This record gives sequence, structure tokens and C-alpha cells, in this order.
Amino acid sequence: MSRVNPNYLQLKSYLFTGIAQKVAAHRNAHPDQKIISLGIGDVTHPFIPAVVSALHKAVDENASLAGFHGYGPSCGYPFLREAIAQEYARLGVTVSSDEIFVSDGAKSDVGNIQELFSPDAVIAVTNPTYTVYIDSNVMAGRAGEALPDGRFSSIVYLPCTRENGFVPDFPERATDLVYLCYPNNPTGTALTREQLAGWVDWAIRNRSIILFDAAYEAFITDKDVPHSIYEIEGAREVAIEFRSYSKTAGFTGLRCGCTVIPKELTAAGPDGAPVPLNPLWNRRQCTKYNGCPYIVQRAAEASHSPEGRRQIAEALSLYHGNAAGILAAAREIGLDAFGGINSPYVWLSTPPKMSSWAFFELLLEKCALICTPGVGFGSCGEGFVRISAFGTRENNLEAISRLKQI
Amino acid sequence: MSRVNPNYLQLKSYLFTGIAQKVAAHRNAHPDQKIISLGIGDVTHPFIPAVVSALHKAVDENASLAGFHGYGPSCGYPFLREAIAQEYARLGVTVSSDEIFVSDGAKSDVGNIQELFSPDAVIAVTNPTYTVYIDSNVMAGRAGEALPDGRFSSIVYLPCTRENGFVPDFPERATDLVYLCYPNNPTGTALTREQLAGWVDWAIRNRSIILFDAAYEAFITDKDVPHSIYEIEGAREVAIEFRSYSKTAGFTGLRCGCTVIPKELTAAGPDGAPVPLNPLWNRRQCTKYNGCPYIVQRAAEASHSPEGRRQIAEALSLYHGNAAGILAAAREIGLDAFGGINSPYVWLSTPPKMSSWAFFELLLEKCALICTPGVGFGSCGEGFVRISAFGTRENNLEAISRLKQI
Repeated sequence: MSRVNPNYLQLKSYLFTGIAQKVAAHRNAHPDQKIISLGIGDVTHPFIPAVVSALHKAVDENASLAGFHGYGPSCGYPFLREAIAQEYARLGVTVSSDEIFVSDGAKSDVGNIQELFSPDAVIAVTNPTYTVYIDSNVMAGRAGEALPDGRFSSIVYLPCTRENGFVPDFPERATDLVYLCYPNNPTGTALTREQLAGWVDWAIRNRSIILFDAAYEAFITDKDVPHSIYEIEGAREVAIEFRSYSKTAGFTGLRCGCTVIPKELTAAGPDGAPVPLNPLWNRRQCTKYNGCPYIVQRAAEASHSPEGRRQIAEALSLYHGNAAGILAAAREIGLDAFGGINSPYVWLSTPPKMSSWAFFELLLEKCALICTPGVGFGSCGEGFVRISAFGTRENNLEAISRLKQI
Repeated sequence: MSRVNPNYLQLKSYLFTGIAQKVAAHRNAHPDQKIISLGIGDVTHPFIPAVVSALHKAVDENASLAGFHGYGPSCGYPFLREAIAQEYARLGVTVSSDEIFVSDGAKSDVGNIQELFSPDAVIAVTNPTYTVYIDSNVMAGRAGEALPDGRFSSIVYLPCTRENGFVPDFPERATDLVYLCYPNNPTGTALTREQLAGWVDWAIRNRSIILFDAAYEAFITDKDVPHSIYEIEGAREVAIEFRSYSKTAGFTGLRCGCTVIPKELTAAGPDGAPVPLNPLWNRRQCTKYNGCPYIVQRAAEASHSPEGRRQIAEALSLYHGNAAGILAAAREIGLDAFGGINSPYVWLSTPPKMSSWAFFELLLEKCALICTPGVGFGSCGEGFVRISAFGTRENNLEAISRLKQI
């Protein structure tokens, strides 16, 4: 008799699904209102010209017998892996192309990476955090029991609060894997070189592995904030890095990202001997994945060209401008706001004694604005909402003027 | 201290990786030879015109602010889910669009589907079989120990041999999940309506679930062979179906497929109560996957149009013609050959007393032809090789003339 994976039954509903339902109800009640979303972190800038022409060219190539590309390498075409390696080289970081695994996006990779590790591995996440880190481990049975407060008994939570500047302390319990996303989703804060070096040092001392989600690195403006964890000495032995084209080159609907697993990186086998993780991930991807579309990889390649990088910089400056406007407006109306400098997200405190969800409802009802309730990312997100700066300039200005009226 | 998932260490090397290495060695030794691949099941026909124009149109749409598509629904855009539902309707089968989950291909889905089930579920596969069914369960710890003969102790193997016409008998042990791929990879044989109805009946009686891989359904020519398991009464309660655009519309490099989970389909929860699998898969996909690219979904939609279907039929007739040529040649040289009628694969017996790998080497050395050793798909594949009919007409004719010379 077939039985379900009991771990799945512990999952709570997906945050953004719940928000979408509330928004739909509001839209039904107020069909004429123009609702502006500052919620889900989705870009709005159209494909940049370099991407558009690379896509057209790749499509035409595949319309001919000689140019047709069928199955590609599961872990990416050499041309793209090489382009990514060169991007690392511009940061002064050496990553070889066979340490780079191209995929359909960082979300899949951060969700799947846990498969490589022991079923009883102890994992740590920041609180608040991107929920995929937790949910993928719940599905795998690593999370323990669901507690009444929404946390899970076996997961180590690292509070990121106003008091610690949203920079987590090291875990107090023995921890095998820690997920770090910096610049951070949802708080919009970044780690300085020294802070990140502290984490690498902690991982080396504890023989732990850092799963470093660098999806937002393109938004970094401070010189003192590293774009890659491999800028830190020793990181190659303790860190896996995830990168994404979604927020940088506007690929949320095109789907491409990559995962870097240095050859030095190992975890212990059953006999205690070190097992390299690079071939293990290769095996995982060759078995359960069949590669990112050729035409999308050509588009990603184009985003690394000089012209592609110039066009991306223009798009990003738009989002940076949006974030600056939101930050200024928040201060004008007397609310504390964090992030938004090295990040497309502003972490906005709610008015005194107002919960995340109550403020979400207020913004929706009074201003027809959608944000993301901070508590949806974890208990330490209570008292905050996440505001995304990915809107169009026009919508962002309109949202700011509505915000100022509450 | 981080430890690896010990199940990964039980995996054998991926079949096609091993073949690629042997071919590379041969190519190095004979750089001037024109090697023809009848190995990996990759199509060669370029994108059909309907797909080319849909892709260009979708790219241009996304080059403008108004037409940009960011994150799409994780389980597919309604336009494509609806087009697939209509394709089912043409078979006389009712599947609603919210039972259809669009993805980046059947390989990912057949690899990931096992996550929904109990970690100790007993699974059955045909022997020979598509190795992803086994490997994904090895990774999850369901396979037991690796035996010296290459099998795994906890997996139920269903022999498909010349004697039983490559149609497996029902499992002798209690089995929770059975993977069936028909038209079959690698043997190229199909199940008649009556044979498939027997399996549905078996699953109902045993409260088991059939994971039905229909990736090759477009190649069916016999009226008596169903294109979907849902053509069989009762299948909605016991079967998940996987479909692919790879072999039909030539999407091996574009990546799109879908999985159908009827709402009636349940498995037992920890308390024995039935748990519907449709929302569980939805939760899995929303968490660890972020949707197939919009432009690829538009291309898939175009393949369902009247003109798309006509263009696909032309491409398929080319492959059918190739298969017929291979079958005839095999008989001419006195080798038994199976499949190739409702399938792009011919299952060719090796010359007397010659192993799969020895015949593979012979074809490579003597004819510069690549095939796939049958034993790579399982012990019952010994004594056979799989020949793919996906080559160009020119290469296929050349391959046939070389075959006739051995």
C-alpha cells in the first residue's frame, strides 16, 4: 500500500500563496482600485537588449539542422561556465569552470542541495529567513517536530534583530550546515568582509559547511561588502555558493542560476574519510536534471558581455533609486527602515504595537499596496514588513506618495 | 561536522557518462573517422517553424515593459495547462488543467516524484529500465544494498525478456510504487490496451501506484496501444503520468514536460487516512522549483496548434522511417530486432555469445557507430543493444550501410 512522505504533512502553507489569496480577495472587493505590489521580489525591467538579441540568435540557430542543439551538458555549456569563471576573475576570485554548475535558478539549487548531506544533519538558518531553506529540510525529515510557535524542533535559528544589526551570532549548538543569504533576504542588510570572514573562520573551526546564497550580490554598493564568499580566505574549503541571474539580469521568468562547489570542499563519509562534494552534486544533477535550455544559457552569456553588463547596471540603478525613495519616505513618516543600500529590499518596521500582518492589511486597505509581512519569514520578522524596490519607477513613485498618506 | 548522504556513495557511474568516455577515447585514436551516434536518445530535427515563431514572439514581448513576464506560476501558465488538457480531450480523456503540472521536463519529474512517498516505500522497476527511476530511489535510501550483480536488495525487478515479449509480469512481492514506461525505453515495445488495463487492475487490487512515463507516446502507430494511461478505466485513482515535449516536439534542448496527478489519487497518511497527492506535488514544486521559462511555455503551446501538430507529424515520420530502415537492416544481417514500430528505439540482439558491451565495442571499432549496451539498463538487457532512430536521414542511411557490412 502506498504511503505518503509524512514529513510533507508538517509543512505550513507557502507564504506567498497565502498573500496572493488575501490580495485576490481585496481585488474582488475593490475591482477599480489600482493595486501596487511591493511584495514578491519580482523584477519589472524588460529583458535588456543584449539578452533579446542573444535569444533571437539562438532561436534562429536552432531552426536549422546544422545549428540545432538537443540535450546539453546537465551542468551547463562550457561557454557559460567559462563566462561565469571570468566574472569571478573580475572579483579577484579563482573558480574553475568545472566547479560551476549551471541550473534553472538558485531556488531549485538551494532547495535541492540538502540532498547531498546526511539525513540527520543539523541545519541552521537565520531568523527571519528565505523559507525554502527550512521547507526543503522539513520535506527531507531534518526539521524535527513543528512547534506551536511555527518553528521546528531540530532546526537551529539564528536571530537577526534590530539589536544585533541583523547580523546573526554563531550557533550555540553543534551545527553541520548553515544557510546564509547576504545581502540578506528579507532584511536587506549585508555582511562586511570582516563579518563574513568571521563566519568562514567559524565553519573551519567547527567543520561545518556554509550554504551561501549570493542571489542579491549585484546590488552591493559598499566597497567593504564582498560579492562572493570566495573573496574570503579559506572559504573554498567550507562554502557552497549560489548565484542567480534573476535579480541581476532580470531572469525571474527565464530561469538561470548557478551553484559553485570548489573541489576542496568535502564532508565526512560513513567511515569518516572526506568525500568531495563536487562530483556528488554533478551526479545529482546528471540524474535528476537535464540542463538549462541552450537558448537561455546563450542569454545568460550575453549578460556577461561588456554591453550586457552596462545595460544591467542601468536596470539596477533604477531599482537602487526606488529603494532610496522608499527609505526616505519611511523616515519621513517616522518609521524605522533598514536595508535598501546593498539590496533591493527595505526592511520596514511597523508602527508601534502593530503586528506585521496588521500593517500588511492596513497598507492593502488604505493604500492598495502589497508588502510582505516580516513574520512570514520567521518569528524575528514580527514588527517588520519587507518592501521590494523591483517596481517600475512610475509605480514606485505612486507607492511612495500613498505611503506618505498613512 | 558535516557528513554526506551515504546513499549517494552506493550509486554506480551514470551510464551515458561511461559511454561518452569510451567514445572520446575512440575519437582521439581515430580523429578522421566520422562517428555516427545511434546511442543517446537525442533528437536531431531542428525546431519546427511554429516553435521558432512562438519563441521569437515571446522574446519580443518580454523586450517591452508591458509585455515582460517575471516569475510565472510554478506549475505552469494557464494557457499551456489548458492546451495540454485539450490534447487529452482529443484522446477522449478528461484531465483538468489544475491536474497538470508543467515542468522543465519529464526527467526532473520522474526523478523527483519519489519524494512524495514514504522513505521505506517498496518500488518496482522493469529490467531493463531507464536508470533514473532506480538512481533517484538509491539517493533517497529506498534501494537497500548494492548487490554484486549490479542490482539493489530492496528494489523489485520485473524481467522484460524475449520470452515474455518484454511485457513484465506483476510483482511477486508487495509493492507500493511501480515505474512503467510505455512505449518502453529501452526495448521499444508497447503495451496493448488490455495489457495496460491489467496493470491498472493490479494497482487497484494492491492499493499501489503506477508511475507511468509516457515520454514516447507520440510514436505510437498501433490503434490498440493507448497514448495515456488515463484511457484505461480506474487509472485516475492509481496512476501519475509523465509527458514530455522532448521526443515529440524536439524539446530535448528547450526543456519542457508535464506531470499529471488526478485529484482522486491518494496515498495513505501516517494514520491510514487517504492523503491527496495533487496538493503535495504542488507544494513540492512551489518550494523547490520556480517554473518553466515563459518563452518555452509559449513554444510548447505552439506545438499543440494545428500547424504545430502537422509539423511535428512530419518530423516523427522521419524518425519512424529511420527505425523501419534499422529494423530491416538488422533482419538482413540475421540479428533479431524488436521495437521500432510504436517507438523510436530498436532493441537489437547481439550476435550469438556476444555481450552487450562487446557488441558496443565492435560497432564502434568496425563501423564507427555508437549504440547503447542493453546491460547498461539492467541485467535483462544483456545480449541486446539499444539503437536510436533519432538521427538525421542521411546519417541513418549511412549507419545502415555500415551495419550491413559487419
